[in-house]
Amino acid sequence: MAAPLPKGLAEAALHRTRDAVEPVLRAAIDTLPGRLRTIAAYHFGWEDAEGAAVDGIGGKLLRPGLVLAAAAAVGGEKVADSPVLAAAAAVELAHNFTLLHDDVIDRDQTRRHRPTAWTVFGAENAILAGDAMLALALRLVGGEAASRLAECVIEICDGQYEDCAFELRDDVTLDECLAMAGKKTGALLGCACALGGLAVRADPLTVAALDLFGRELGMAFQLTDDLLGIWGDPAVTGKPVGADLSARKKSLPVVAALSARSAAAGELARLYALGRDFTEHEVRRATDAVERAGGRAWAATEATARIAKAHAHLRRAPSIEQTAVHDLHAIAELITRRSK
Amino acid sequence: MAAPLPKGLAEAALHRTRDAVEPVLRAAIDTLPGRLRTIAAYHFGWEDAEGAAVDGIGGKLLRPGLVLAAAAAVGGEKVADSPVLAAAAAVELAHNFTLLHDDVIDRDQTRRHRPTAWTVFGAENAILAGDAMLALALRLVGGEAASRLAECVIEICDGQYEDCAFELRDDVTLDECLAMAGKKTGALLGCACALGGLAVRADPLTVAALDLFGRELGMAFQLTDDLLGIWGDPAVTGKPVGADLSARKKSLPVVAALSARSAAAGELARLYALGRDFTEHEVRRATDAVERAGGRAWAATEATARIAKAHAHLRRAPSIEQTAVHDLHAIAELITRRSK
Repeated sequence: MAAPLPKGLAEAALHRTRDAVEPVLRAAIDTLPGRLRTIAAYHFGWEDAEGAAVDGIGGKLLRPGLVLAAAAAVGGEKVADSPVLAAAAAVELAHNFTLLHDDVIDRDQTRRHRPTAWTVFGAENAILAGDAMLALALRLVGGEAASRLAECVIEICDGQYEDCAFELRDDVTLDECLAMAGKKTGALLGCACALGGLAVRADPLTVAALDLFGRELGMAFQLTDDLLGIWGDPAVTGKPVGADLSARKKSLPVVAALSARSAAAGELARLYALGRDFTEHEVRRATDAVERAGGRAWAATEATARIAKAHAHLRRAPSIEQTAVHDLHAIAELITRRSK
Repeated sequence: MAAPLPKGLAEAALHRTRDAVEPVLRAAIDTLPGRLRTIAAYHFGWEDAEGAAVDGIGGKLLRPGLVLAAAAAVGGEKVADSPVLAAAAAVELAHNFTLLHDDVIDRDQTRRHRPTAWTVFGAENAILAGDAMLALALRLVGGEAASRLAECVIEICDGQYEDCAFELRDDVTLDECLAMAGKKTGALLGCACALGGLAVRADPLTVAALDLFGRELGMAFQLTDDLLGIWGDPAVTGKPVGADLSARKKSLPVVAALSARSAAAGELARLYALGRDFTEHEVRRATDAVERAGGRAWAATEATARIAKAHAHLRRAPSIEQTAVHDLHAIAELITRRSK
């Protein structure tokens, strides 16, 4: 594992990412037809529902950050090249395309502390804006990068399909859930890293290693996300307390807890079998049961193990400049210690 | 205008298209993950809801037919090349992506005489299968072709957005509707022709002319579609009689009729103002009013004029082999005389 990193390195990398990528992202969104642009700008947190400018909100830009960091790890100074920035913007557009559609599919009301786009503009229009953002993402990157991003989007759709299907089954295994998270979350983080490498013409083995690095990072990201969904501070995460449990979501810590053979696992299974949203008291009981059945500890350990695996992939890459990987390391570290 | 064409030429071109493109299309669909593949295969009419093979149904493959015909008009013998077939399959995938999503958005129950995919597999899954098909389409064509297809998909999303918005307004003009049809239908037929040219490395002016040719063809297609929606034989079109009128759809003949200043236009406006689906008697009255207000005659004349404009674009293209345009002419002619 890498040496301990100074605090704030990942934040600085993501800050630089925002400065470099947001103008490219805004310019791309500005090429969308009027109404679809309005929906996209609202979704990104740049405008309110009336189209007035809003500042200071929007995503973490973690995925574009990975593109830039991966390009830096391979190509050194070429990061400010337009192919790198185009790839970074494309990955963020593809990510937000999935968010727009997933919110419609899951009927989620809130994202980043604001009403979701479909609740403001209608489900139909949110679907169309998502479609247009996907097309825009693929237009930004030509040839092999577009093909790779398209392949990744298909994998994400497959993961989201499984996610919907799993909610209807009561015999989902932990392995199935891990594979699903690999598609839903891992694929795009892997693609982000691979696209960074491709944009500075890294060799195929290095691109493959970057992809595997990102995929393991994605697993750690999802595990952390699921932990925050249960034990995170709602004021920080922007999601209502206990929302994941109340909706009986089969998140990774829950499925890990359910597969334990203990009294706590049995209690959790009985709560999940109620077939309705939980009361506040039931949310507290379920939270406690996941912890006692070992779901919380397993997820935290697994996240750390995934980060270690990620670093191992990176060390095996032929043309990674080991002196230039600090941003990749910093972002990897941020993923498990974040609070939202 | 071109000399009269022997009957059956367009049918023969579309038959050759099916033989050449369907294997590529099936191979592409077979690369989708299991459940998304099942939905796509059902949508294309290759399988029933249980996944058993079905034969003999599916779309006309008009758009891939245009890709092949455009490539033939420019490049002669290179049509069997894989870039041409990949472009043809990509255009058909992009078209079917829009159908999957539009059926969800419009809550349409029937397509090609069968229950729509979302009624069989759920709206969520139909959205995801559509997303995956779009990604697959863009993966099939690299570089400039992918960029052009992506641009076209954004235009289609814009058109579909306007189509939804127009249904809520009662002051939509004929020019607005024509512009919307240009985006919803014209853009992809233009893109199909342009991609055929690109696939055999036609010069930019010729590619632009092919695009304009296809766009005018698309307008003729939409006008014919709208006429069939009112006066077509439901047994042939596969749509219930009077469905477009009953749902008070603002199709082109209707908007043309509404903009006339006559008693019939007034009657049509009063029927449309009812704010509910029509009875059988009201459908007959509305059908009659569109005809008396001149909507039917206008649409038929306009369709013929668009075909003439299309041919004019083709004649101005620098490197079209005027001896090799017979398939483009035949498909153009088929578009206005078809019955479904």
